[in-house]
Amino acid sequence: MAIIAREQYLKSIRAMRPNVWRNGELIEDLTTHPATKGIIESTARAYDASNDPETATICTTTSKLTGEPIHRWNSLMQSLEDIIANSNFKRFSYRNTGTCTGATCVGWNAQNVMWAVTYEMDKDLGTNYQERLKNWLLKSQENGWAVAGALTDAKGDRSMSPSQTENPDSNVRVKEVRPDGIVVSGVKAMICGVEAANEIFILPGSAYKDPDADYAVAFVVPRDIEGLTIVGCRKPSDSREFEEGWDKAVETGTNSVYLIFEDVFVPNERVFMCRENKYTGKVITYFTANYRAPIGACVAGQGDIMIGASVLMARANGLSVKPFYDKIIQMAINNETTYCMGIGAMACGYKHPSGIWISNSKLAHANKVHVATLPYETKRLCQEIGGGIVETGCFPSYKDLTHPEIGPKLMKAVKASVNYSAETRARAARLSEWLTVGAGIPGCMHGGGSPDGARMVVRANTPIEEFAKQAAKLCGITEDVVDPAPKKK
Amino acid sequence: MAIIAREQYLKSIRAMRPNVWRNGELIEDLTTHPATKGIIESTARAYDASNDPETATICTTTSKLTGEPIHRWNSLMQSLEDIIANSNFKRFSYRNTGTCTGATCVGWNAQNVMWAVTYEMDKDLGTNYQERLKNWLLKSQENGWAVAGALTDAKGDRSMSPSQTENPDSNVRVKEVRPDGIVVSGVKAMICGVEAANEIFILPGSAYKDPDADYAVAFVVPRDIEGLTIVGCRKPSDSREFEEGWDKAVETGTNSVYLIFEDVFVPNERVFMCRENKYTGKVITYFTANYRAPIGACVAGQGDIMIGASVLMARANGLSVKPFYDKIIQMAINNETTYCMGIGAMACGYKHPSGIWISNSKLAHANKVHVATLPYETKRLCQEIGGGIVETGCFPSYKDLTHPEIGPKLMKAVKASVNYSAETRARAARLSEWLTVGAGIPGCMHGGGSPDGARMVVRANTPIEEFAKQAAKLCGITEDVVDPAPKKK
Amino acid sequence: MAIIAREQYLKSIRAMRPNVWRNGELIEDLTTHPATKGIIESTARAYDASNDPETATICTTTSKLTGEPIHRWNSLMQSLEDIIANSNFKRFSYRNTGTCTGATCVGWNAQNVMWAVTYEMDKDLGTNYQERLKNWLLKSQENGWAVAGALTDAKGDRSMSPSQTENPDSNVRVKEVRPDGIVVSGVKAMICGVEAANEIFILPGSAYKDPDADYAVAFVVPRDIEGLTIVGCRKPSDSREFEEGWDKAVETGTNSVYLIFEDVFVPNERVFMCRENKYTGKVITYFTANYRAPIGACVAGQGDIMIGASVLMARANGLSVKPFYDKIIQMAINNETTYCMGIGAMACGYKHPSGIWISNSKLAHANKVHVATLPYETKRLCQEIGGGIVETGCFPSYKDLTHPEIGPKLMKAVKASVNYSAETRARAARLSEWLTVGAGIPGCMHGGGSPDGARMVVRANTPIEEFAKQAAKLCGITEDVVDPAPKKK
Amino acid sequence: MAIIAREQYLKSIRAMRPNVWRNGELIEDLTTHPATKGIIESTARAYDASNDPETATICTTTSKLTGEPIHRWNSLMQSLEDIIANSNFKRFSYRNTGTCTGATCVGWNAQNVMWAVTYEMDKDLGTNYQERLKNWLLKSQENGWAVAGALTDAKGDRSMSPSQTENPDSNVRVKEVRPDGIVVSGVKAMICGVEAANEIFILPGSAYKDPDADYAVAFVVPRDIEGLTIVGCRKPSDSREFEEGWDKAVETGTNSVYLIFEDVFVPNERVFMCRENKYTGKVITYFTANYRAPIGACVAGQGDIMIGASVLMARANGLSVKPFYDKIIQMAINNETTYCMGIGAMACGYKHPSGIWISNSKLAHANKVHVATLPYETKRLCQEIGGGIVETGCFPSYKDLTHPEIGPKLMKAVKASVNYSAETRARAARLSEWLTVGAGIPGCMHGGGSPDGARMVVRANTPIEEFAKQAAKLCGITEDVVDPAPKKK
Repeated sequence: MAIIAREQYLKSIRAMRPNVWRNGELIEDLTTHPATKGIIESTARAYDASNDPETATICTTTSKLTGEPIHRWNSLMQSLEDIIANSNFKRFSYRNTGTCTGATCVGWNAQNVMWAVTYEMDKDLGTNYQERLKNWLLKSQENGWAVAGALTDAKGDRSMSPSQTENPDSNVRVKEVRPDGIVVSGVKAMICGVEAANEIFILPGSAYKDPDADYAVAFVVPRDIEGLTIVGCRKPSDSREFEEGWDKAVETGTNSVYLIFEDVFVPNERVFMCRENKYTGKVITYFTANYRAPIGACVAGQGDIMIGASVLMARANGLSVKPFYDKIIQMAINNETTYCMGIGAMACGYKHPSGIWISNSKLAHANKVHVATLPYETKRLCQEIGGGIVETGCFPSYKDLTHPEIGPKLMKAVKASVNYSAETRARAARLSEWLTVGAGIPGCMHGGGSPDGARMVVRANTPIEEFAKQAAKLCGITEDVVDPAPKKK
Repeated sequence: MAIIAREQYLKSIRAMRPNVWRNGELIEDLTTHPATKGIIESTARAYDASNDPETATICTTTSKLTGEPIHRWNSLMQSLEDIIANSNFKRFSYRNTGTCTGATCVGWNAQNVMWAVTYEMDKDLGTNYQERLKNWLLKSQENGWAVAGALTDAKGDRSMSPSQTENPDSNVRVKEVRPDGIVVSGVKAMICGVEAANEIFILPGSAYKDPDADYAVAFVVPRDIEGLTIVGCRKPSDSREFEEGWDKAVETGTNSVYLIFEDVFVPNERVFMCRENKYTGKVITYFTANYRAPIGACVAGQGDIMIGASVLMARANGLSVKPFYDKIIQMAINNETTYCMGIGAMACGYKHPSGIWISNSKLAHANKVHVATLPYETKRLCQEIGGGIVETGCFPSYKDLTHPEIGPKLMKAVKASVNYSAETRARAARLSEWLTVGAGIPGCMHGGGSPDGARMVVRANTPIEEFAKQAAKLCGITEDVVDPAPKKK
Repeated sequence: MAIIAREQYLKSIRAMRPNVWRNGELIEDLTTHPATKGIIESTARAYDASNDPETATICTTTSKLTGEPIHRWNSLMQSLEDIIANSNFKRFSYRNTGTCTGATCVGWNAQNVMWAVTYEMDKDLGTNYQERLKNWLLKSQENGWAVAGALTDAKGDRSMSPSQTENPDSNVRVKEVRPDGIVVSGVKAMICGVEAANEIFILPGSAYKDPDADYAVAFVVPRDIEGLTIVGCRKPSDSREFEEGWDKAVETGTNSVYLIFEDVFVPNERVFMCRENKYTGKVITYFTANYRAPIGACVAGQGDIMIGASVLMARANGLSVKPFYDKIIQMAINNETTYCMGIGAMACGYKHPSGIWISNSKLAHANKVHVATLPYETKRLCQEIGGGIVETGCFPSYKDLTHPEIGPKLMKAVKASVNYSAETRARAARLSEWLTVGAGIPGCMHGGGSPDGARMVVRANTPIEEFAKQAAKLCGITEDVVDPAPKKK
Repeated sequence: MAIIAREQYLKSIRAMRPNVWRNGELIEDLTTHPATKGIIESTARAYDASNDPETATICTTTSKLTGEPIHRWNSLMQSLEDIIANSNFKRFSYRNTGTCTGATCVGWNAQNVMWAVTYEMDKDLGTNYQERLKNWLLKSQENGWAVAGALTDAKGDRSMSPSQTENPDSNVRVKEVRPDGIVVSGVKAMICGVEAANEIFILPGSAYKDPDADYAVAFVVPRDIEGLTIVGCRKPSDSREFEEGWDKAVETGTNSVYLIFEDVFVPNERVFMCRENKYTGKVITYFTANYRAPIGACVAGQGDIMIGASVLMARANGLSVKPFYDKIIQMAINNETTYCMGIGAMACGYKHPSGIWISNSKLAHANKVHVATLPYETKRLCQEIGGGIVETGCFPSYKDLTHPEIGPKLMKAVKASVNYSAETRARAARLSEWLTVGAGIPGCMHGGGSPDGARMVVRANTPIEEFAKQAAKLCGITEDVVDPAPKKK
């Protein structure tokens, strides 16, 4: 029963109450509405792949809690193999859908991170958070839920802490603690995968000091819980999802939303942290290490598709791919770099006493800088190979190409290779556009935090004084060379 | 009379017959239709600036033919100062409109290039092409026309020459020569500025050998000439131009189109080359040198606006720009590089016997490679400073932000800096998105030819054998070191 | 007895007959001669570290053959942990000596690679090569030998195979097979660590076809075997090793040599491949995968020292390192990239049936491209922080700085920070020069093969047709898009 | 008489008293001593080229003061053509000698800069500095002097101003003003071209405030003036200049020195600034603009030779250059970028009221950042094409290659291409090594100031507030978006 099929999944999404808005409209059926059916299709393909013998090992595993087969995204990652499998699932899914795995990504990481942090809290404070988490996890595994996760708050003024900023609800917080649960309010922003998820796992958005203790809160809720309003964001060329024809490029999709919590009641069994702000630093450290290590697999998977799209474009233009090998090799190196550094960060990680595998933070953050830069080169190369029609999408619309009067003229005009139809060229061009400047752009630069934040983690973990001492020893310096005292002003 | 005002310009556009299609619709009034009014607004601002004492020197000059004041884009460029003024006009216009100067760009270059090439043809062949061009030029200067230019053909199969490819009309060609003029057919693709132009100047798209002599043709036509069908292309997020509110970011715009010529008659006085394929190489050489030199000013101007947008985003987020200085300096260096190398290519140019200034081809093409790469870094930095909401535009829509029920909640949620409104942040975010992954992306990588083509020109102009000889002399090699003979297979 | 101390090691080197030349001189005692004592000091420090409790786990392990403690570089690497330990030993040694681990690097890899290849040969051909190797390995472990390795041949004309090239001895080959052993001749070029080694492990330099079967040969010899002449190569500023004072920067060093074999007899028990050219491809594949994965740790270790040297220079100049953090972070990211991708390549490897761990070839080769490029940026940053005196070493000589007449004036002139002596600044400057443009430059770009060779391996392992198919599926292309047939000429 | 020949030049150098030290030795005859004859040969070749009809227009011009023919490096640069000719002379000289034009570079710039600054001082203060400069210039033109220039002081602690630092003579200063002249002391560091110069032109090293007025001093002295001690610096592999054979690669050279002034008396007619610290900012501004614009031509010229060396190496290895075209094109683009941006900076300059042409400062400094980075890529590519033997110079020494016993074996071993001798390969390899990690490395990153200094000039000249305003206008922001006030602490 734990390996769910597409139809069961779609049914579970349809069963929830409408609370997702887009363009001023409350969406009735997410699975059929043009704005959301793409992201649900992307997620549904993961359920398909779980049931396909060829890909089942990528998408499923055995529960360490029950010994039952489960979807990978419902599992605890307790070994290097487990977490490498996370990367491989992400890369596979990107290739399989062209998009990120929103509804099976952050939530998966969140439950693992909280498995470790609840272990620490329970040990130090005598709480029973891990038990609660375990119970929820069993239910999640049994139902094969897609679980989105939310870390980033709307924040308010970036130069202030949550409790200082104008609007106390710019960040999600505990408003009230009741005997049977907590009441939360506030906004999580740019949250991915929500429309395709059964549940949403909320983590604190930063490491908090005592004055911000109310913001130290972790819990999980059904997507359609009372008091939660969800508003979908725009993305480039998003209106094409409402159009007919090939201009939208693909049937899949991804999306991000704002989660507006207004006095939402969360029962205790779904609360895994409540004002223990001392542990929020741990949440952030574990989360970012285990998020930024496999995120390189996502951009690698997208890069694989960009290689494929480049090959299609060259050939649709009437050319061989051979003269483009140098560029394709560079694209491949970029893909393998972010993928492989992520694996390296995992291999240099360690097993947390709770049993969870934690990646090496410094290496995961060094990789994040590549994730924030290399895909830009890969996209540029994809556009360079594809030519002007993919650089800016300057190609006639589906409506014009299929118009009774001007369509036939246009189709004749845009046909290039003698071997392939104009439609094939149009589709390849729209795919390339979609990948590089369209709705297919993943938010990898800032997703899971900014590259400057990553650079700071690298800085903090680079022992420059030790390196200076070793350098001094090598060249025979006997003075102790320290930084000059700051000048008095 | 030669310095035209906005209203006269708009009137002249409105006076032409409808022949521009978009999304299956033949547009009645280009100046008011959402799909085209942006590009016309961009062009109208150049007319405004011509009449503004502060910017008149940038946008106007004195005709060397008549001594009258004229718009710069109607002038012959006969000195280094003249052609530097082309760069400065382009950079100014980009800052002024956020977009490229389509309707005053390629046409301007085309008339200069043909001034030189007609001089050569007339001298060699006894034709009177330059006289025809001069007469048209006088009219163009008098009417202050906006003149688009078209070089790139639809091409067909890239591995074949125009006469070999399936469809003889994949490239524009002379179908018939009559006593009073010529009949042309064929398609020019991805042509910029057409909807905002009075006239369109057609050049041959490549250097042609004898079998392709029919494709050696240059002429100028009114935009609405009989037999010409124009179809506008898509660009990222183009549908937003049909929306209300700030999601479309700006009121200006640019666009590219397909020009479908079907048995169009062009009278002799508007024909400047007809089957003299020997001279098409000159057209390409002069055109690319003088096009790729100032194109660096366009991307510099866009980069200037990206710096501005980054500053706005940082502050709208509640931050100072100071921590971002390193990134902004890099953006500025990128901008100045493409601008300044263009100027350097001009300064290393020469005065053609016809009086036209020709930029240095090797240097202009070296610059083209930067134009095709550096703006990608500038965009990335703009997104890095702006944060996740500009990377993918994941920010709620105008419709949601202004919706009676969810709007107020959302506006409160997205407000960041205590000093600035949520609307200011939304507008800055949409501008940054528009510039980096939206309709504001200029086609600079492939515009005017591919970077690989540019690399080949650099290669052809780098005297590697001479460098090898000098190196050999320096290190005392006395053997003559030549490339090995190719192996027999 | 298997963990050897510095003195035993030095004694073993001194015990061998002189056969190493430098600058036209046959060196009597390698351990004291200025040209070779540096590399021997580097190696001796590895023996020191093996005996230091703090570093023993890095430098020693337990023999899987005997259960005895051994130096790591005498071990078989049979698990991911084992091979990660190779990377960590390399990075540690670089930090500890400033130089590469020549005499404990390629030989270590060679014995592992041949463990796998002899397993395959024995299985397929019924030979007993692995038994021979095991017997030698037991002796090597017992004696704690430093074993250099040699792959690269002198090659001759790069466009020809070994048997085609003018001089049959441009590559090492079997000249004669005798009952008790083989006679070999030929030249291995640019071989590292030889002067500090007890033994030299020879591998075939490429994958050979049948006509080159004589070149398919693997064996191990003592460094001072009869018939072997060794000539040391130059490196930048190598003459400083013959000078007094701090201009040579460090007491350690590395070196490469030419090995000239002239009718050298190798007894059968030291021969592990003899004309089985079918298996040379395996040697190359396993060798490069396991060599290019950990080589990233070497350049990372050198980069760590460059960070240290940069810190020293900034402070010796009177500055804080704070304004240089951005540059130092970039250096650190470069270091971690090559290190971590190497680990990732290992973690994506597999256990060979012989028990040896083989790294992932594609990922190891993608890393090689970074190894060939990123250190150049790291060096540039080191020079940028250090200032002009490290960029080109333009700083007075030790002789001038300590000259009775001009020395005192100069020392006063070059003193910068009020806190540190002129000598400290001189030493830091010379270290930085040595690391970036001096004798400390490691040969990482071409060491173990060229980056273009690595790119070809990446190309061969990137399934671009599969990516194209997946891309076509995503965008709904139904035609089978293949490369056009080459044109007939 | 003003166009001097090699012999006259050498005679003039020999006529001066010895005051140059190297390696603890006071050099008697600079023109024959191994440490200095290379740089003098480089300079002598400029005199040769001045007398060669083929290159005379590059190296000579007409004096605007006398109408007589003069060496270019003795001229005032009063037009765009004049200053472009500076760039072209530099690029030619680099190709002609492989080295920088030390003795005809900074001094040339210095006299031009001081022509402008003395004009301003005379106008404001009623001094007669320009008259003095003119008289010296007439003499310099008549004698065809090589004039080195010195800006950079030894500085002392970088965090202090000259008058604050421990040693008041860390920077050159006026110690005493006498009726007939001034007495100066202090140290200029890393000064190029001095050993090959007749005269040395001293400029203030920075913009000084009133407390540092003594350091505001400009003057010119013969190289051998009493009280001046000159100590040559080291450079990579400098000892090879003392060796026989091809290991030193070339017969030319460059060098930098420390100038130690101890109570040197300078007569008034050679003093062009004395304590007018208000004008030191102008000196720096004009100097850096006109120095950093043409410096791109120097690295371009070196890059041209690197292309040549790469071609030689490929062929000496037995290969065609064709597979390396991509790399060579990138090298060429790098060369043309620094050259062409320099020309662009000049073309965007202006004519100073004194008649001197001043380059655009912002653009010249943007170019400086490329000068500090692009050559590193060019060098890397040169090493990538050349192979391992040029990466680190790991190739046997001349002494070994020509040794009676081992030489013949080695020569046979290192021969590669069947078409070229081993010696040709050795020479090409040593040239490549010399260019990339040997004595031929020019100090372009820090020469004339650091890249971070250049970045600050770019920052200061980038109107980010104006760009922000324009961006705000484009997207309809009506609030005035300014930086937040710094937080109180």
